[in-house]
Amino acid sequence: MTPTGLPPGEPSRLPPPFEFAPDGIRVDGLGLADLADRFGSPLYVTSALRIRDNVLRLRSALTTRWPNSRILYAIKANSNPAILRILRELGCGADCSSPAEMVFAQAAGFPRRETLYTAAYPSDAELAGAIEAGVAVNLDHPGLLPRLLRAGRPPLLSFRLNPGRSAAGPEGLRFAGRDSKFGSSLASVRQGLEAAHRAGVRDWGIHTMPGSNILAPDHFGRVGDFLGRAIRSLQRVMGRPPTFADAGGGLGVPYRPTETELNLDLAISRLVLGLRSAASPADVQLWMEPGRYLVADSTVLLGTVTDTKPGRPAFVGTDAGMQTLLRPALYGAYHAIYPAGPVRPGTRRRVTVTGPICENTDLLGRDRRLPPLEVGDLLAVATAGAYGYSMASPYNNRPRPAEVLVDGGRARLIRRRETTDDLLCQVPERPDRERG
Amino acid sequence: MTPTGLPPGEPSRLPPPFEFAPDGIRVDGLGLADLADRFGSPLYVTSALRIRDNVLRLRSALTTRWPNSRILYAIKANSNPAILRILRELGCGADCSSPAEMVFAQAAGFPRRETLYTAAYPSDAELAGAIEAGVAVNLDHPGLLPRLLRAGRPPLLSFRLNPGRSAAGPEGLRFAGRDSKFGSSLASVRQGLEAAHRAGVRDWGIHTMPGSNILAPDHFGRVGDFLGRAIRSLQRVMGRPPTFADAGGGLGVPYRPTETELNLDLAISRLVLGLRSAASPADVQLWMEPGRYLVADSTVLLGTVTDTKPGRPAFVGTDAGMQTLLRPALYGAYHAIYPAGPVRPGTRRRVTVTGPICENTDLLGRDRRLPPLEVGDLLAVATAGAYGYSMASPYNNRPRPAEVLVDGGRARLIRRRETTDDLLCQVPERPDRERG
Repeated sequence: MTPTGLPPGEPSRLPPPFEFAPDGIRVDGLGLADLADRFGSPLYVTSALRIRDNVLRLRSALTTRWPNSRILYAIKANSNPAILRILRELGCGADCSSPAEMVFAQAAGFPRRETLYTAAYPSDAELAGAIEAGVAVNLDHPGLLPRLLRAGRPPLLSFRLNPGRSAAGPEGLRFAGRDSKFGSSLASVRQGLEAAHRAGVRDWGIHTMPGSNILAPDHFGRVGDFLGRAIRSLQRVMGRPPTFADAGGGLGVPYRPTETELNLDLAISRLVLGLRSAASPADVQLWMEPGRYLVADSTVLLGTVTDTKPGRPAFVGTDAGMQTLLRPALYGAYHAIYPAGPVRPGTRRRVTVTGPICENTDLLGRDRRLPPLEVGDLLAVATAGAYGYSMASPYNNRPRPAEVLVDGGRARLIRRRETTDDLLCQVPERPDRERG
Repeated sequence: MTPTGLPPGEPSRLPPPFEFAPDGIRVDGLGLADLADRFGSPLYVTSALRIRDNVLRLRSALTTRWPNSRILYAIKANSNPAILRILRELGCGADCSSPAEMVFAQAAGFPRRETLYTAAYPSDAELAGAIEAGVAVNLDHPGLLPRLLRAGRPPLLSFRLNPGRSAAGPEGLRFAGRDSKFGSSLASVRQGLEAAHRAGVRDWGIHTMPGSNILAPDHFGRVGDFLGRAIRSLQRVMGRPPTFADAGGGLGVPYRPTETELNLDLAISRLVLGLRSAASPADVQLWMEPGRYLVADSTVLLGTVTDTKPGRPAFVGTDAGMQTLLRPALYGAYHAIYPAGPVRPGTRRRVTVTGPICENTDLLGRDRRLPPLEVGDLLAVATAGAYGYSMASPYNNRPRPAEVLVDGGRARLIRRRETTDDLLCQVPERPDRERG
């Protein structure tokens, strides 16, 4: 049998409709190598089908356990408008972290009451912008309330609870705990809600986000318990149950071959168990705001081998690097890397996959066992749909890549490649034009 | 005496023409707070005068010790065209790490023979682009030579030597050593030059770049010794001395209050000592390719306090964050932070300065002793001119900041602020326009 790019004995980190074929990896029947020929390299390739599957799986897990539930997509993970529209068409709401994301959410048709604005350390102008946009507002701490109310009253108001402990996935990202910049204690949120009630706010919610990229279902049990305790305490203040309880994101995705998929049913069962002790789906809507879980494994980053260098370690350089996908350099994050085209015969060897950036920080994968690679070969970096393009920069003046969406066996450009000209588009005096 | 933003007893990390005044920090007589009022926040503010001083100091240190010397500015550090023109007007050459940087260098008027292209893991198209641009080419290893020569012969050719050891500054950035992705051994470079000679190449150079942001003069002595040994060995192969010996960059800049300035005269004296053992300024031009040393301390990043949060640690949030200045989040790099406007009376307290990004990675400075700060106050992040804007991204859909150049007591916009609209400029289907 002709070998494929999937290492023998390793689980695939490319879910359907990606498939390993003898002539290379395909998505929805399209060869990744053909897509790179057509759209260039480096290239982000996203499967619409996989996004839909992820949404439907999560929705099913949620609604069978808490019929009154809502998925708010965390736009920061991947804000391409074509991807936002897929999520909107599936009935998702939107989780926004900046004024631009509120604009994108409204442009994609997300309803205002299902758009939640959670800013970290917002300015007064931003708070006023959220009021003007008419979206639900989630405040980090009660000190922000008078600043928000100066602009007006949101249709729905919540506070972000910091449960005082946190879980971190492999990236070490923490969003709660005593040393976190996010959220407030239960006592502090109670004061905030009391002040909100005095100011006439009636529709309220509660929000927490204590972990990122978590694969252990138990974590979500702790989130549910915590939300349950908070609701019991806080609804006394407000005289009514919350309109929503937002369990945040944190639903993990396996990146490494050694990781196993999150048992979603178990995670949501445990989450709901804690919530049920304090609330009923008849009164309280359960919100979750996943980003990574919906889009990470929908996308591969394609990079072309530009040079190889023997040694210890041996290096394989590609046109994709830390400027295209920052996560390995910034967090030490792991992304599986596979040959995207036909696999060359020969022994797999350990190589470090790097990019074109002039520093050793530049890394896609360290110490990977890969088949022989030559200049021009194509590599697929898996699980690149979340915090991939969204963290890209034109560092070293390497223009950002293009993005392609594959849907129903057809591919279309959803963001064109950045050009050298684009790199200067904010510069008022263009020396190249002056001299022309 | 009215207090200034400079902590008592601490050395300033803002060199002239920045000055601490009772009403806030000034640059070339202009108040930073006035500049933020006029151009908005966050904002990079660069002093042309400081760049000129840096170039002149380095040139003087070089030419008094090696009259035949040349400074090639490393464009990757800060590629704003207005800044490139300042460096070109001072007679600098250019060090380019990507095709776009060759375009920028030519647009700014850098001469071709004083433009060096050093790519990490270049594609064939890139190598051909360098030949077409007619610039000097510095190859990482001999395996690239046949690929380069297929496109043509460069006017000047060098190889990048890896001395097998490396020094790292506070960011831990290494550019050499056994596990580095850069450069080749002396034996390997000798083979490369032999092959180049057989192919008719006569004008050659030698390049090394074993450290980044180094404050110890001894390091440059080791670089000089190494270059000297390499020249003695390699000129036998080529039958003539090299046209240039490129000692790379690595000239350090103090970021922390505890660091002391690099003794530049001593560093260059030691560098030249090693070189003189093998070459003479009559034959060999000494090249250096500093980026950071010329521009880092020319620039402050201004950020406005958007929120404060008591606790342990206490947090101060600003509109500038990891999306504006990535170095603290990526490398754990230290940048001094000062109040940019009038200093509020009261005890200095330890705070962590963070940005508006929805992750705890987002950091400008941890555990800084700062005077009382309120929403709307302006902070100046020092030494932000190198790898500041050049590593910025619109992460969390926070548009990138504007850049302002101060020269002769006047300020002008050299890059306008990115807009929400700009964030979608590569998207073919604009949902906001379709729906309009």
